[in-house]
Amino acid sequence: MTQASYSIRELAKHVGGHVVGDESIMIERIANLENAGDRSISYVDSDKHFDTAAVSGAACLIVPSANNRPQFKSPALIEVANPKLAFSQIAAVLHPPILREPAIDATAVLAKTADVALTAFVGPNAVVGEYARIGPDTRVEAGTIVGANVTIGSECVIHPNVVLYDGVSIGDRVILHAGVCIGADGFGYVRDAMGYHKFPQIGTVVIEDDVELGAHTCVDRAALGRTRIGKGTKLDNMVHVGHNCDIGERVVIAAQTGISGSVTIEDDAVIGGQVGFGDHTRVQSGAIIGSKAGILPGKIVRPGVWWGIPVQPLADYKRMNAHLGRLPEMREELKQLRQRIRDLEDKLKT
Amino acid sequence: MTQASYSIRELAKHVGGHVVGDESIMIERIANLENAGDRSISYVDSDKHFDTAAVSGAACLIVPSANNRPQFKSPALIEVANPKLAFSQIAAVLHPPILREPAIDATAVLAKTADVALTAFVGPNAVVGEYARIGPDTRVEAGTIVGANVTIGSECVIHPNVVLYDGVSIGDRVILHAGVCIGADGFGYVRDAMGYHKFPQIGTVVIEDDVELGAHTCVDRAALGRTRIGKGTKLDNMVHVGHNCDIGERVVIAAQTGISGSVTIEDDAVIGGQVGFGDHTRVQSGAIIGSKAGILPGKIVRPGVWWGIPVQPLADYKRMNAHLGRLPEMREELKQLRQRIRDLEDKLKT
Amino acid sequence: MTQASYSIRELAKHVGGHVVGDESIMIERIANLENAGDRSISYVDSDKHFDTAAVSGAACLIVPSANNRPQFKSPALIEVANPKLAFSQIAAVLHPPILREPAIDATAVLAKTADVALTAFVGPNAVVGEYARIGPDTRVEAGTIVGANVTIGSECVIHPNVVLYDGVSIGDRVILHAGVCIGADGFGYVRDAMGYHKFPQIGTVVIEDDVELGAHTCVDRAALGRTRIGKGTKLDNMVHVGHNCDIGERVVIAAQTGISGSVTIEDDAVIGGQVGFGDHTRVQSGAIIGSKAGILPGKIVRPGVWWGIPVQPLADYKRMNAHLGRLPEMREELKQLRQRIRDLEDKLKT
Repeated sequence: MTQASYSIRELAKHVGGHVVGDESIMIERIANLENAGDRSISYVDSDKHFDTAAVSGAACLIVPSANNRPQFKSPALIEVANPKLAFSQIAAVLHPPILREPAIDATAVLAKTADVALTAFVGPNAVVGEYARIGPDTRVEAGTIVGANVTIGSECVIHPNVVLYDGVSIGDRVILHAGVCIGADGFGYVRDAMGYHKFPQIGTVVIEDDVELGAHTCVDRAALGRTRIGKGTKLDNMVHVGHNCDIGERVVIAAQTGISGSVTIEDDAVIGGQVGFGDHTRVQSGAIIGSKAGILPGKIVRPGVWWGIPVQPLADYKRMNAHLGRLPEMREELKQLRQRIRDLEDKLKT
Repeated sequence: MTQASYSIRELAKHVGGHVVGDESIMIERIANLENAGDRSISYVDSDKHFDTAAVSGAACLIVPSANNRPQFKSPALIEVANPKLAFSQIAAVLHPPILREPAIDATAVLAKTADVALTAFVGPNAVVGEYARIGPDTRVEAGTIVGANVTIGSECVIHPNVVLYDGVSIGDRVILHAGVCIGADGFGYVRDAMGYHKFPQIGTVVIEDDVELGAHTCVDRAALGRTRIGKGTKLDNMVHVGHNCDIGERVVIAAQTGISGSVTIEDDAVIGGQVGFGDHTRVQSGAIIGSKAGILPGKIVRPGVWWGIPVQPLADYKRMNAHLGRLPEMREELKQLRQRIRDLEDKLKT
Repeated sequence: MTQASYSIRELAKHVGGHVVGDESIMIERIANLENAGDRSISYVDSDKHFDTAAVSGAACLIVPSANNRPQFKSPALIEVANPKLAFSQIAAVLHPPILREPAIDATAVLAKTADVALTAFVGPNAVVGEYARIGPDTRVEAGTIVGANVTIGSECVIHPNVVLYDGVSIGDRVILHAGVCIGADGFGYVRDAMGYHKFPQIGTVVIEDDVELGAHTCVDRAALGRTRIGKGTKLDNMVHVGHNCDIGERVVIAAQTGISGSVTIEDDAVIGGQVGFGDHTRVQSGAIIGSKAGILPGKIVRPGVWWGIPVQPLADYKRMNAHLGRLPEMREELKQLRQRIRDLEDKLKT
C-alpha cells in the first residue's frame, strides 16, 4: 500500500485550525503521544497529558489555544477548539476506510429481483434475498445474509456474517459490525396448560442513518409495528434490543447491555455496559445510567446520573453506601450505649 | 404477495370462540388496538385496555366473556376464555411463517453421506456434514453450518448463520434463530505448573422438540454425557448454557442469562434476563428468578420468587431493602439516644 | 469410525503413572465414574467421590498414591500425582480431535495473494483475503471469514463462522470457537453539537499461542497500537474485550464478562462470569475476581479474592453482609434502648 501524505497546512485547513511553526512538514499517520515520530501527528487536550506532550516526538501536535496550555517544542502545532475532534477528522483523512471497487463477487448469491446499486460491493458468499435493495457505495461484506425485502441505504458498511432478517430497513451511512443480527423474533409467548405458544412477531426493525452497531449486537423485530434505532445512535458489542423498543437519536449504549421489550430511550441518553432494562421502561433525554445498573419494569428514568440495582440517583446511591460503610461503627456505638444505660440503671437501683 | 383473508366465522371456529355481531366480515391481518382498521382483528384481555378497546377501529375484537367486560361497539366480537392465546392462534393463520419450496440451493455444500428429507429446504451457502440427517419440512437457512453426524428433526426452522457442531441432536419443530451455536466445547481445564490443559469435552447436546432459542444463544456440549434443553423450553437472545446442564421442559429464560456447567433447571421454571448461575446449582420446579439475580455454586433454589445477588426470597429481599432505607433514621436516633444518655449521666452526677 | 484402543500399560507410561493390577487390559474410552464400563477409564481425586469410585464399573481408575486413598477393587489402577490432569492427557490420546485431510474446499474463496500452508485445511465457503497467511496443520472451518493481511499460525482450529478482521494476528495452537469475532472497531467517539464522530480505530489485535476463545467472544482492535490476549489464556463464551486491552498469559475469564477499553489484566489472574470492568482498570497477578463483580474505571485490583459491586476484598464483602444481616436485630435493640432510657428519664423525674 502506498501511504497518502498531507502537509500540516492542508490538515490545519481541513479542521479550521491555526498553525504555529513549520506548516510545510508532511504528515503520514496518526499516533499517540508516546509512539509518535517524524511523520506523525498526535493531539493533547488535557493537563494530564501536557508532560507527555512536552517530550513527544510527534512532528505535529493538535493543541488547545495558547492561553489554555504550556509551550510545546514540537516542530509544528495546530491550534483548534476541540483537539480530539480535529484529531479524529485528520485520522479519517490520513487513514480512510478501505474502499472496495464496486463489484458483486462471483460467489455471492443474489435473488433475481434484488436491486443492487451499480456502485455497491457485495462480497464472497454473501446472500441477497428477493426484492432486497442495496444503495450506492454500500459494502456488504463476505458471508452476510440479506433477507427478502430488506432495504439498505447508501454508503453503509455491513461487515462479514451479519444477518438481516426479511423486511428490515437500514438507513444511510450505517455501520454494522460482524455478526450483527437484525430482525429475529421478539421473545413473546402465551402460556396455557400445554406450555408456551408463540405470540405473533410480525413487525419490523428500522435502523436510521449514521447508526453504528458493535459486533454481535441483536435487535429484535417488533411483535406489531417496529423496533427503532434512531439517527446517529451508537451501540457497542453484544447489546440486546428487545421487540418494540424505541431508541432515540444520538444515544450511546456500551457493551452487553440488555433492553427488554417496549422500552423507550429518548434522544441523547448515555447508557453504560451490562445495564439491564425491564420492559416498558422509559429513559428521558438527559439521563446517564452507570454500568451494571438494573431498571425495574415500567420505571421512568429522569434526567440526571443514575446508578445501582435497582437504579437510583447517583447522589442517593453514594449516600446509602456511606451509611453502609458506617454500620460497624453503629453496632459498636449501640454496644456502648447499652452499657451506659446498664450503668445508669444500676446507679438508680442503689 | 396476495393476502389471505378469513371470515370472522372461520376464525372464531378455529379458536373455539363465540361470535357477537357480524360473523361474515372478512379479516386480513392482526393489529394492536390503536392501529387496527377495517380488515383487522385485535384483542383485549385486561381492564387496563378497555378504554382503548372502546375506541378501537378494529373490525373485530377478541374479548373475554360478557360478564368480565364492558360492551364494545366494534362490528364484531369473538368471545373466548383466553383472548391473548386466541389472538396468537389467529395470527398464525393470518400470517403463516414463510414456506420455502422444498429445495437444496445450488450453492449449498452437502456431504455425500448427508441424508436430507425430500421436503426439506437447504438455503444458499449452507453446509451439511457427513452423515448429518435433516428431517421433513425442515428449513436450514443460508450460511448455516450443520456438522457431521448432526440430527435435525422435522418442521424445524434453522435461521441463517447458525452453527451446529458435530454430533448434536435437534428435535422436531425446533426454531433456532440466527447465529445460534450448539455444541462448542465446554469451559473446562486442568491447571498445572505449565498452565491450563483442556479437560476432555467429548459429550454432546440434545435439543428436544418445540424448543426455541434466540439469536446468538450458545449451548455447550457436555464434557461427558450430554447437555440437554427440554421439550417446549424457550430461551431468549444471547443466553449462555454451559456444559452438562440439564434444562427441563417448558422453562423460560430471558436474554443474556449465563448458566455455568452442570446446572439443573427443573420443568416450568421462569428465569429473568442477565441472571448468573454458579456451577452445580439446581432450580426446582415452581421457582421464579428475577432479572440480574446471582446464584452461588451448589445452591438449591426452591419454589417461589427469588431476587438479588446472592439470590434470596423476594420477601426477604424487600424486607432487607426496607431496613436499608431506614439506615439514615437509625443513625439519627442513635445520636439522640446518645444525647439523652449524656443528659441522664449529667443529672445523676449532680 | 474405528475406535483406537490402548493397553493400560501404554496409557500409564504416557502419563508417567504406576499401575496396580492388570496392565494388559485394553481401554477404548474415557467415562465418568457412574457410567464407566468394561473398556473405560475414569478418575477419582477427592474424598467426595471415593464412595462412587468404590462401586464404579470402570476397567481402570486413575487415582492418587495409595496413602491418600482407600483401596479400590477395580481390575486396574494408575497411580499419579494429579489424576485429573492424567485423565485429560489420556482423553486426548483416546479421543483425538478430528483430523482433516489437508485440503482447500472447492467452495472456499481464496485471494490470489493468500498464502495457505500445504498441510492446512480450509473448509466449505470459507473466505481468505489478500495477503492472509495460514500456517501448517491449521484448520479453518466452514463459513469462516479471514480478512486481508491476517496471520494465523500453525495447528490452530478456527471453528465455523468466525470473523477475523483485516490485519489481526493469531499465534500457534489457538482455538477459536464458532462465531468468534476478532478486530471489530473499538467503541470510541468524539461528541460535538452535531452528535458523535468516530474516533480512529486503526490499531490491531494480537492473539498469542495456545489461547482458546469460547463461542461468540469478541475482541476489538486497538484505536492505536494493539489489543493483546497473552499466551495460554482461556476465555469462555460471549466475553467482550474492548480496544487496547492487554490480557496477560494464563488468564482465565468465564462467560459473558465485559472488559472496557484499555484494561490491563496481568498473568495468571482468574475472572468469573458476567464481571464488568470499567476502562483503564488494572488487575494484578494473583487476583481472583468473583462472578458478577463490577470494577470502577481506573481501579487497581491487587492480589487476593475480590467480590461485589463495586469490587472489594471477599473478607470485607462477607463482613458487610454479616452486618447487613444484623440490621433487623439492631433496629429491635434501638427500640429497647429507647424504652429503657425513657424509663430512666421517668424515674429521674420522680
